Amino acid sequence: MSDQTNSSWGGRFSEPTDAFVARYTASVDFDQRLYAHDIQGSIAHAKMLTKVGVLTQAECDDILRGLEEVRIEIERGDFKWSIELEDVHMNIEAALTAKIGITGKKLHTGRSRNDQVATDIRLYLRDEIDNIGTELTRLQEGLVGLAAAHSDTIMPGFTHLQTAQPVTFGHHILAWNEMLERDYDRLLDVRKRLNHLPLGAAALAGTTYPIDRHYTAELLGFTAPTENSLDSVSDRDFAIEFTAAGAIIMMHMSRFSEELVLWASAQFQFIHLPDRFCTGSSIMPQKKNPDVPELVRGKSGRVYGHLMSLLTLMKSQPLAYNKDNQEDKEPLFDTVDTLRDSIRAFADMAPYLEPNKPSMYEAARRGFSTATDLADYVVVKGIPFRDAHEIVGKAVAYGIETGKDLSEMTLEELQKFSDQITADVFDVLTLEGSVAARDHIGGTAPKQVIAAAKRASERLSKR
Amino acid sequence: MSDQTNSSWGGRFSEPTDAFVARYTASVDFDQRLYAHDIQGSIAHAKMLTKVGVLTQAECDDILRGLEEVRIEIERGDFKWSIELEDVHMNIEAALTAKIGITGKKLHTGRSRNDQVATDIRLYLRDEIDNIGTELTRLQEGLVGLAAAHSDTIMPGFTHLQTAQPVTFGHHILAWNEMLERDYDRLLDVRKRLNHLPLGAAALAGTTYPIDRHYTAELLGFTAPTENSLDSVSDRDFAIEFTAAGAIIMMHMSRFSEELVLWASAQFQFIHLPDRFCTGSSIMPQKKNPDVPELVRGKSGRVYGHLMSLLTLMKSQPLAYNKDNQEDKEPLFDTVDTLRDSIRAFADMAPYLEPNKPSMYEAARRGFSTATDLADYVVVKGIPFRDAHEIVGKAVAYGIETGKDLSEMTLEELQKFSDQITADVFDVLTLEGSVAARDHIGGTAPKQVIAAAKRASERLSKR
Amino acid sequence: MSDQTNSSWGGRFSEPTDAFVARYTASVDFDQRLYAHDIQGSIAHAKMLTKVGVLTQAECDDILRGLEEVRIEIERGDFKWSIELEDVHMNIEAALTAKIGITGKKLHTGRSRNDQVATDIRLYLRDEIDNIGTELTRLQEGLVGLAAAHSDTIMPGFTHLQTAQPVTFGHHILAWNEMLERDYDRLLDVRKRLNHLPLGAAALAGTTYPIDRHYTAELLGFTAPTENSLDSVSDRDFAIEFTAAGAIIMMHMSRFSEELVLWASAQFQFIHLPDRFCTGSSIMPQKKNPDVPELVRGKSGRVYGHLMSLLTLMKSQPLAYNKDNQEDKEPLFDTVDTLRDSIRAFADMAPYLEPNKPSMYEAARRGFSTATDLADYVVVKGIPFRDAHEIVGKAVAYGIETGKDLSEMTLEELQKFSDQITADVFDVLTLEGSVAARDHIGGTAPKQVIAAAKRASERLSKR
Amino acid sequence: MSDQTNSSWGGRFSEPTDAFVARYTASVDFDQRLYAHDIQGSIAHAKMLTKVGVLTQAECDDILRGLEEVRIEIERGDFKWSIELEDVHMNIEAALTAKIGITGKKLHTGRSRNDQVATDIRLYLRDEIDNIGTELTRLQEGLVGLAAAHSDTIMPGFTHLQTAQPVTFGHHILAWNEMLERDYDRLLDVRKRLNHLPLGAAALAGTTYPIDRHYTAELLGFTAPTENSLDSVSDRDFAIEFTAAGAIIMMHMSRFSEELVLWASAQFQFIHLPDRFCTGSSIMPQKKNPDVPELVRGKSGRVYGHLMSLLTLMKSQPLAYNKDNQEDKEPLFDTVDTLRDSIRAFADMAPYLEPNKPSMYEAARRGFSTATDLADYVVVKGIPFRDAHEIVGKAVAYGIETGKDLSEMTLEELQKFSDQITADVFDVLTLEGSVAARDHIGGTAPKQVIAAAKRASERLSKR
Repeated sequence: MSDQTNSSWGGRFSEPTDAFVARYTASVDFDQRLYAHDIQGSIAHAKMLTKVGVLTQAECDDILRGLEEVRIEIERGDFKWSIELEDVHMNIEAALTAKIGITGKKLHTGRSRNDQVATDIRLYLRDEIDNIGTELTRLQEGLVGLAAAHSDTIMPGFTHLQTAQPVTFGHHILAWNEMLERDYDRLLDVRKRLNHLPLGAAALAGTTYPIDRHYTAELLGFTAPTENSLDSVSDRDFAIEFTAAGAIIMMHMSRFSEELVLWASAQFQFIHLPDRFCTGSSIMPQKKNPDVPELVRGKSGRVYGHLMSLLTLMKSQPLAYNKDNQEDKEPLFDTVDTLRDSIRAFADMAPYLEPNKPSMYEAARRGFSTATDLADYVVVKGIPFRDAHEIVGKAVAYGIETGKDLSEMTLEELQKFSDQITADVFDVLTLEGSVAARDHIGGTAPKQVIAAAKRASERLSKR
Repeated sequence: MSDQTNSSWGGRFSEPTDAFVARYTASVDFDQRLYAHDIQGSIAHAKMLTKVGVLTQAECDDILRGLEEVRIEIERGDFKWSIELEDVHMNIEAALTAKIGITGKKLHTGRSRNDQVATDIRLYLRDEIDNIGTELTRLQEGLVGLAAAHSDTIMPGFTHLQTAQPVTFGHHILAWNEMLERDYDRLLDVRKRLNHLPLGAAALAGTTYPIDRHYTAELLGFTAPTENSLDSVSDRDFAIEFTAAGAIIMMHMSRFSEELVLWASAQFQFIHLPDRFCTGSSIMPQKKNPDVPELVRGKSGRVYGHLMSLLTLMKSQPLAYNKDNQEDKEPLFDTVDTLRDSIRAFADMAPYLEPNKPSMYEAARRGFSTATDLADYVVVKGIPFRDAHEIVGKAVAYGIETGKDLSEMTLEELQKFSDQITADVFDVLTLEGSVAARDHIGGTAPKQVIAAAKRASERLSKR
Repeated sequence: MSDQTNSSWGGRFSEPTDAFVARYTASVDFDQRLYAHDIQGSIAHAKMLTKVGVLTQAECDDILRGLEEVRIEIERGDFKWSIELEDVHMNIEAALTAKIGITGKKLHTGRSRNDQVATDIRLYLRDEIDNIGTELTRLQEGLVGLAAAHSDTIMPGFTHLQTAQPVTFGHHILAWNEMLERDYDRLLDVRKRLNHLPLGAAALAGTTYPIDRHYTAELLGFTAPTENSLDSVSDRDFAIEFTAAGAIIMMHMSRFSEELVLWASAQFQFIHLPDRFCTGSSIMPQKKNPDVPELVRGKSGRVYGHLMSLLTLMKSQPLAYNKDNQEDKEPLFDTVDTLRDSIRAFADMAPYLEPNKPSMYEAARRGFSTATDLADYVVVKGIPFRDAHEIVGKAVAYGIETGKDLSEMTLEELQKFSDQITADVFDVLTLEGSVAARDHIGGTAPKQVIAAAKRASERLSKR
Repeated sequence: MSDQTNSSWGGRFSEPTDAFVARYTASVDFDQRLYAHDIQGSIAHAKMLTKVGVLTQAECDDILRGLEEVRIEIERGDFKWSIELEDVHMNIEAALTAKIGITGKKLHTGRSRNDQVATDIRLYLRDEIDNIGTELTRLQEGLVGLAAAHSDTIMPGFTHLQTAQPVTFGHHILAWNEMLERDYDRLLDVRKRLNHLPLGAAALAGTTYPIDRHYTAELLGFTAPTENSLDSVSDRDFAIEFTAAGAIIMMHMSRFSEELVLWASAQFQFIHLPDRFCTGSSIMPQKKNPDVPELVRGKSGRVYGHLMSLLTLMKSQPLAYNKDNQEDKEPLFDTVDTLRDSIRAFADMAPYLEPNKPSMYEAARRGFSTATDLADYVVVKGIPFRDAHEIVGKAVAYGIETGKDLSEMTLEELQKFSDQITADVFDVLTLEGSVAARDHIGGTAPKQVIAAAKRASERLSKR
């Protein structure tokens, strides 16, 4: 640390910042990630200042050229980031001024780091939401394709992890797709709400320069300028709302992961994961571990934690900007990375999930999964549902005792539980009959699954 | 607990549920709150079953009459809730059957408690979102009115809780309104996304009865039936998304509260809270405590916690319904109550917040709050901003030393820092000049505040 | 609400509390749970005041008699709790005064509700920690007994939910016991740290009365009085630390639950849960759902949420007491109830867990679970471990291809992978040989399991 | 990524890991931080293997020499970390083998990465707890010194941020010290509980080699080996318990921070923060922002988030090790860094906190802070406390109306409220009299503060 007070604000200070404090409070180590959006915002600001006459066209040209040089330097890895300059904004401004002289200092006219960083993060997050959306779409396309290919692949449907009723694998996969469909929709809402320009709020109260915020908003693709300067520099709703949407995405991904881990176990054997998405054990030579789903499942905690971190951060902060807000970036950045990478890994893997059909079918055949069908059958014969339930419950108890599934009992055996049962009962006790009979929107009947996959595919193609 | 196995599902069980387990697993103590929505859903279900021919019109009439009787009994407080009957659904069905006989049992045809409870909660939450929205609107109206009345009431604007620049009280209050505006918008998005009918998903796979889910959706005011039965019974996104929106609301409310508590302190004296929103101390007779804002601030933790609870709950659950999901209700109910009551308390109080104008004005006058204006003044004289900053920094250091605010220095004193300063400098060093000069959308100039309040008011009137 | 200002602090107030505010800010609905500890604290306080001469013995006798009457009334359900009296403290004091006259008012000498409630909660929590400890011990005894009975029952050990190496069921159950052992230890540490008396801190600064805090501490079984009055009325560490310990307990319980749910599935069939700890389905007659473990697993979210709630609550609160603190009680109470009931349910169930030995054995036999043993065997023959790993990896790949487990291959087949393999290899490929060979402290060898169960049992008997 | 399957476990794999998956699942980018503890554990393991005869002394010497070379390379920055080698363990082992040949591979005998990483983290965390403890002690020493120097510096004590009663600055500072005292104690308990050796658990079940876990434990300074191998590789309690203790520390630090931010404001002016712990504004030349406390306050969210992350991570994980567990490291590492740096920043700053005595005194003088003393005075005259409260409440209301503090009223004015008041009342209405009268352990009387600081200092000196 230099032995002078900080050059950007040190006028009233009588001693330089403590070296450890300088490091503790600097953000440049992590906020340099915003460089491209910082430059993008500065370009728009410079153009606006030129339009309203604060900068000349020549000054503007110098600034734009200088910023472009800085960007290239950063992207080449030649840029020297300095802790003394605290953050990405001061680093870039200092580099610009070193290149183009005193005009570089004029770029900061009519703005403050408070509204500048608020603008940078929104630009950054808007881009990343689009990136995540792209991966989500890719994952959903993979799932919908898989579902369409398995509209009549039968597997046991579970409640309480107990065999409940037969469903189709396609239907199960489309359940995942529905979750992701809501996730995508939520991200669009986050994007809509964040897409307002805070620049012009300056430190907290606006500026005395004759700025044109509508013009800057237009240049940066924002819907409109924000309505209130105090709110603009202190608002971090978008980061929280995004992270909340991200937490729900990771919750969904952890549910898929849990199922993949279960299905890949020796006990289930429902699915084959390609070797390239698994790893082995350094001690147990036979192991093939479903690392990707396990890690995705674990990473849900990460995003939950970031959400809690951001909510805590903003709790009880008086207006307007406080230094606390600097802590918004790392959780946000890590949430973005976690989402993008986790969804990407699943999008890569999804099309190669290979169900083990015989194993699934056999599992569905066991476990009295057509018991509800038998109950419905008896109801059609005129018995109230609650009584039918009792009848079938007793048949199941008998089945457990004797080791027979319902379809393995004789007609005589079945008739011991109700004299309403006749030979046609065996039609409803088959798995194929059971799934085909759930033939309404949202049901597991193969033709419904085909229709649902088609609708899902059409929605995706319209994005 | 009875010594028999549970009558609604006990067919295959060889021993009754343990008494403590029955109590531990029952939900009726808290889910009875859903009674009205359970009945609402059942009425629509009965009408749909009648339309498709599963029930006769006479059966439907009996059911509707019976349900109406049950509702009246519950609302009168005459209903006997039973732990043995586990939940609100079985309690109501049992009461219905007691009233109208065997037809009561037919109501459950083509549905399961899994899709029934999913429907009930959505209906409940949709209503409560509307109630919360009403309170939010009332609070916002109060704030916008207060802002309009104080468009030129000057107070210090803070960053880092240090005096930064003068702003108007109206401008500050509108910052709060902007937060709530986003909150309202977020609730609308939650409502939009939850407004799909899960009924018809039955236990998990759909039903073999020829149900008409579009008709039921229409009867209940849902946009459409849900697309996938497995997702329908296991989805709790709406509860999480609502609680996340609620956590952001409480975060905002905790920020307002923090400011009210600060402002009501002897050190600030910016505001007078009506006695009826405060309480006293049983030991210190002079105390007048800002209980309502303190409690609202504290209650933010409650909703943050519920959000974490729900996210944890759903983490890694395999499809479809699991008993874990029963734990969704208490956090959701408490979030609803906390939001509605906290917003109501603030909506009641907001119009009676009374700023202490002289105290605010004096605080703004101190603390070099027009330093930025002086810097801007010097810039206009042709000095780059970063140099102007340095000049003013030195003037401030001199002011601290000598105990003089900038406007209290003589022209000679000021000129020691820059010879560009002339007599017209004193125009920009007044508070009124400072706020009036921030005259662009989002700025604190009184005329901008008036315009912003007008726009806010128009938005509210369109809800 | 009465039309008068509150009688306990209303002197300086010009209008009564708003009726809704009175309800919103009152705590008596939930803090009445503290009545017994409030009375316990008051008795000690009265005795101390008598010892130091502030009360006469006759006054003290009146107070003790009056408090006893109040207690009986509350326990009989005859007590009328009043919202106007705000909280449990004022309700009890008012009732006392109604019974014994003006002396009742003297009880509040030298204390405030701030230190009173801090004392009450500590007394309450100390008792509940003891209750929870009792249930924990009972659960651990059940587990240790089960482990001892199954020291040589073989099951597959999993990593990544893939079959890894054979272990014994007793060893697995003792892993659970280790977690609970740490939990018990943590609760003891919480208890140790909370066991200091805050009474005497009064509102925040101590009192002018000549109180003897050591005497009160002794009467109430506290280690010592707290050291600082400001800290005493604002400290809620004990609630947070307890809830953190509780969150870890529930995390452990959710892990056991997850395993029980898996093991009870048709795919695993490792365990039989008694019917009385399960429930059925109202629609699927064959279902037997592991409700208790599912609900325990779900309830982990509840306690995680309460922890977050309490941490958020205390964040950034300036000293000393603030109304926010009233929000500490509900999360704490619910954490206590959740822990006590969940552990109780498991303690009731644990001794009746019945492993399905043949199913476990067969699962261990499949999946190349002795691959590590083969690798170790080859190492003993002089091959470095990493190379041995490679050899066995290839044998496993061959086994997958040909559908043979390692023990099912011929010597010739095995020798294709290494010529170091001889006929004695089959000794190490048995499950019994594999587990017996892990014969060191912490290992799964039956004799180690027996020894570990014995040590665990001895630790429990010393509590 | 190489086009070969991973050399440490690839035997049974038919295709190499996907390149993106390799990056997504690798941990070496963050777990390289454990290198010193990984080597420390390996050295002990090698010595133990030598003691039991698995390695020769010559092999052991080679390994120790090789590990030392690796350590030096890493510390010099010459080590090439490889993503292909996944983690710190494989990177170090590969480097060792490159140096000393085939013997390097023997080091892994009788252990697995599962127990190795569990050991590494415990060693790492034990060291870091010691480091954090050192900083805590330094901070506490600073605070206790400050308190001793200000045992009679009077300031207002607040409840609800309203002036309550006068206290001394020293007393207030000691309240902070009490919180940190509990924090230190909690860290000791975490350390005690984590200080058991998991090495020897191998992958999950123990090892077939004749290891001596007591010897390894002794070499590494652990109390004892862990009791159960399955628990040993899956337990992350220590990380959660540490992070929970850390969350409480950060909660305390955020409370101190909140007070420092308030006190440094123009409204309070209670404290002077040295310039070197503050920063300025790039736009407002007069600003001096309390960055360090603000940032500490903000960082509380970070640690809360990590706690939630870890709790979520472990929720519902079946035994034994799962890949999810890899996610334990980043939150733990960041918690360690945040705690150590935040406490260090405060420890550096604490001795230089400079109270503004006149400003504090004046604030205490205003606001009727001796109202309780007046009430106590009246009680001594024989009036019950609740009635005394009423009398003083009315005097305060009169004071607010007339703008007079209690000590500014005439005797006649005071007597209007009670004829028991006589001339000696003015003794108790002074600030000095008020604080001196709270003269019992924990009270704010200067002599109690001196005694408390002495006791605190003695406790610190015994660490």
